[in-house]
Amino acid sequence: MKIVASVSSLSEAEQASSLPSVDVIELRLDLFDTFPSVEFVKELTKAKILTIRKVEDGGQFIGNDEERLEIYGRYAEACQYADVETGSYDAFFDLPCTIIESYHNFSETPSYNFLADLIDSSQGDIFKIAVMGRSKKDVVTICRILSEYESVVAFLMGREFSYTRILAVLMGAPFIYCHTGSAVVSGQIHVKTADKILRLLGVR
Amino acid sequence: MKIVASVSSLSEAEQASSLPSVDVIELRLDLFDTFPSVEFVKELTKAKILTIRKVEDGGQFIGNDEERLEIYGRYAEACQYADVETGSYDAFFDLPCTIIESYHNFSETPSYNFLADLIDSSQGDIFKIAVMGRSKKDVVTICRILSEYESVVAFLMGREFSYTRILAVLMGAPFIYCHTGSAVVSGQIHVKTADKILRLLGVR
Repeated sequence: MKIVASVSSLSEAEQASSLPSVDVIELRLDLFDTFPSVEFVKELTKAKILTIRKVEDGGQFIGNDEERLEIYGRYAEACQYADVETGSYDAFFDLPCTIIESYHNFSETPSYNFLADLIDSSQGDIFKIAVMGRSKKDVVTICRILSEYESVVAFLMGREFSYTRILAVLMGAPFIYCHTGSAVVSGQIHVKTADKILRLLGVR
Repeated sequence: MKIVASVSSLSEAEQASSLPSVDVIELRLDLFDTFPSVEFVKELTKAKILTIRKVEDGGQFIGNDEERLEIYGRYAEACQYADVETGSYDAFFDLPCTIIESYHNFSETPSYNFLADLIDSSQGDIFKIAVMGRSKKDVVTICRILSEYESVVAFLMGREFSYTRILAVLMGAPFIYCHTGSAVVSGQIHVKTADKILRLLGVR
């Protein structure tokens, strides 16, 4: 599994690039005050995930889809992965990157069948599910998804469900999304904490 | 949750008694070369679980049930908990301790319904399920049990499923069974490792 550092500024990106515990940097460009140059992105010494999240998906990008696609296109050559929300129109899935199709739900964890249907109709290469945890039943739902599907990252948001992020990689998820300073989402853990826990469990 | 050190000798018991990360000592009397005195057990500065496991349940006690019950009775006053295998006859459940009714399966993980039936017909106070993990589906089974029942410790044995021991306490299991030197069961982790992981996850 790979430890992903989600970063929201140039300085965080540079810092993440120098951390041994970080395997991949997710550039949350919607959270950047100023966009980096393509050269800057290329020079970061890790694999990169390109993410430009809209407000309705929990991000801060306020332009339209054409503008968003244009920005994705600009950075695509410098990034191995692009995160594209499920339901995005086809052009997003044609970006020359490994596509992480993502589903976010900040209010609840939908049913197993709802989530399984999303994965079954996926156009991406990897599917990411980040949903709000409310009860232990939600842990079971995520656990079932991780048991049934490969190439899926699935975890519960919420402080008390932080451990489902660890559970996911232990059950085969390719990535664990972490922070390098302060959590941008409830329950996100520090890259160094994730690295320590996974080493203590003997899987890294 | 409480970190339990399973010990198999007098020296391990004394060592566990002095470790800050240990909350409870499980005295696996069936693995002791010589039985400790009741005074020795009383002087251990932690809560104690009294366990005398028969060969057919994965232990090394070779006497009959009458002898076993006599030994349980001898130490019961010095121990807060007694581990009694499910299906033991009633007198074992009358010991003056909190009863941990346990089910072990060293070959597979039975179905959810089989395990749920065991818990539903339990005579003990806490139910412990330790079953061999073979696939991710077994993780889902354990996760469902932990979601549906309180006062249940449930985890998968096997090196690659060590993390289910951590998952269990994060989902509300009262105990995590650990070792203080070398694992007596595949996948068991060190008390200090469990303590570190749980602290890193912010739950201890």
